[in-house]
Amino acid sequence: MNVSVFIATSLDGFIARPDGDIDWLMEASQKAIGEDMGYESFMAMSDYLIMGRNSYEKVLSFDEWPYEGQKVIVISSTLKSEDIKLEGVELFSGALEDLVARLRDAKCGQLYIDGGRLIQSFLNQNLITDMTITTIPILLGSGISLFGAREHDVPLELEFSKSFPSGFVQNKYTVGQN
Amino acid sequence: MNVSVFIATSLDGFIARPDGDIDWLMEASQKAIGEDMGYESFMAMSDYLIMGRNSYEKVLSFDEWPYEGQKVIVISSTLKSEDIKLEGVELFSGALEDLVARLRDAKCGQLYIDGGRLIQSFLNQNLITDMTITTIPILLGSGISLFGAREHDVPLELEFSKSFPSGFVQNKYTVGQN
Repeated sequence: MNVSVFIATSLDGFIARPDGDIDWLMEASQKAIGEDMGYESFMAMSDYLIMGRNSYEKVLSFDEWPYEGQKVIVISSTLKSEDIKLEGVELFSGALEDLVARLRDAKCGQLYIDGGRLIQSFLNQNLITDMTITTIPILLGSGISLFGAREHDVPLELEFSKSFPSGFVQNKYTVGQN
Repeated sequence: MNVSVFIATSLDGFIARPDGDIDWLMEASQKAIGEDMGYESFMAMSDYLIMGRNSYEKVLSFDEWPYEGQKVIVISSTLKSEDIKLEGVELFSGALEDLVARLRDAKCGQLYIDGGRLIQSFLNQNLITDMTITTIPILLGSGISLFGAREHDVPLELEFSKSFPSGFVQNKYTVGQN
């Protein structure tokens, strides 16, 4: 089962500004219209989108829920099941490895792990199998980092690298043992 | 005149471990033997290699001075001219923009800016024109970052992107106005 990250970062490694704003990504994406970064097929391959409470609340604040028809699991120890009213969205508050084991037993083929803190938690527990990272040609100088502090190296293997006329560079890495 | 960066980083943006160690880079480079990342031609194009005191002292600690035949300027406000005994190495302690102006007046074609802190200083003063960054497929978790905190976005343009069988990905960016 793939436990996968698919995310964009600035060249200096930020996924959002300090307040979570992704205006810079939206603006850059205007230059990338028509370029197929593979997001839709990645999403279509994913049995579940798994996100943290921060991401969930951010997405809820949008005009429209963008994940219609996609099964979503929200990881939170503070939300309650009755807080989640959307069809296809469930809450999980246990250990991440238990969730991964459960979904593997359920014959899932791919999990899509989203959100900075949640990605770090999955990485720190050696649960991520691959990361597709699209680097946007901008330095932000501050923000929410994709990667956090770790005590051990994580060796990676480059699966592919593609660049686009927009200047976006997409690299897919598989995650080695560490 | 190009004021250029040519450097390798881990995927999480570190140019060295917290103590300056680049063992991970040396080890990864073993897999990249025979791959031409363009370092030699970049160096040959550079009129001056410009480094900070930290980098200078690090390089001095090597068995052999690796920049024989290359003109080097060390930026330091604490070193004195008499501390520098190597042929072709000079000291500069003034404003970086004055140095750049002097070398532009001297018809230099390219300056090679090296070392984490010095690169940040040049970037913060909008003096860098291009950056060739080779991303090594590893997460280190901690270390000396290539990029530091900044208050303003820096827009970049991707000039080229190349990947290598070793899994190294090299991107060259030109630096926009900010």
